[in-house]
Amino acid sequence: MESFSPSFNRLVGLISRLPGIGKKSAERLAYHILKNPPAYARQLAEELSAIHEKIIFCSRCGLMTEQDPCVICSSSRRDPSLLCVVETPADALNIEKTAEFRGLYHVLKGAISPLNRVRPEDLRIEELRKRIAEKPVEEIILATNPTVEGDTTALYIADMLKESGVKISRIARGLPMGGELEFADALTLSQAIQHRDTL
Amino acid sequence: MESFSPSFNRLVGLISRLPGIGKKSAERLAYHILKNPPAYARQLAEELSAIHEKIIFCSRCGLMTEQDPCVICSSSRRDPSLLCVVETPADALNIEKTAEFRGLYHVLKGAISPLNRVRPEDLRIEELRKRIAEKPVEEIILATNPTVEGDTTALYIADMLKESGVKISRIARGLPMGGELEFADALTLSQAIQHRDTL
Repeated sequence: MESFSPSFNRLVGLISRLPGIGKKSAERLAYHILKNPPAYARQLAEELSAIHEKIIFCSRCGLMTEQDPCVICSSSRRDPSLLCVVETPADALNIEKTAEFRGLYHVLKGAISPLNRVRPEDLRIEELRKRIAEKPVEEIILATNPTVEGDTTALYIADMLKESGVKISRIARGLPMGGELEFADALTLSQAIQHRDTL
Repeated sequence: MESFSPSFNRLVGLISRLPGIGKKSAERLAYHILKNPPAYARQLAEELSAIHEKIIFCSRCGLMTEQDPCVICSSSRRDPSLLCVVETPADALNIEKTAEFRGLYHVLKGAISPLNRVRPEDLRIEELRKRIAEKPVEEIILATNPTVEGDTTALYIADMLKESGVKISRIARGLPMGGELEFADALTLSQAIQHRDTL
């Protein structure tokens, strides 16, 4: 059932195009926005109209930024010999949280997925090849997701760079911190055993 | 970890104020909008800035509408002697789906909830009393949610109107306990209306 307001229905239609948000949730969100003071809807509208103008993707690493190159790529405190390859900017920001990595990033903007028709040439893989050809690095950490797509992408890149002599590593897989053996899936557990560390 | 774009962070902040959307989801949604062509963000922004101007609440029933009174209140094909009291416009629209109810609606805009500090005077209960005093009806169907709050609200209204002589009914408990009207399927909802009990 559509509401009796075409404006409301249009808003619901647009919201329900967001990933993971169905028609019902979209209606609930639109109604929430409507119940709230207009200032909120106005602010949201302003930010939405501005993002495509303000936010650009760093021409080097692909992170979201408002200056090019981004703060990480232009920082003198980062180690340019270490490159971490991730699928999305969100992955890179999550790695930043750990304060464990002091190198630079390279965002692929996705992972190879024949099912979703994402081919290597749809990703920033060629940019990666050019980037390290122009400015050689010592190590590339492949931090794509530990999924079929992420693994495929990591293998593809490792294969592409195997002649380059650069050290290539893959983030470790195992049980998450605080995770319980009892509830771990067989695949994770088997990986955790295979890749056990000698103490 | 915030991104390196203040615009992006502001957008994430605004999106995460929506109900049921945490920081992570907000980031995912904002990134999705950013990845899509600017036209989508622009359309969304336009609809958001317009809704508070275009959409009003019907001065009689409280439904969302762009004309006052709304299409239901101003329809000659509806039975004005039958009034269905609901918590939200979404509930009324869900009842409309069943095509079971041909009367008019009265939206309370919530339910009595001491925990959430919602008192009877915060709802459109006084408007309901006035409405049926000015234009008497034969029956009032209390279709608030079958929850503690919804039941409390139904009892409160039934008590308030018990001297008025109007027939008061409550939708049948064909709905699962603790369930919400907004998400009920049409058949269950239609049964609940057919088997309403006189209070």
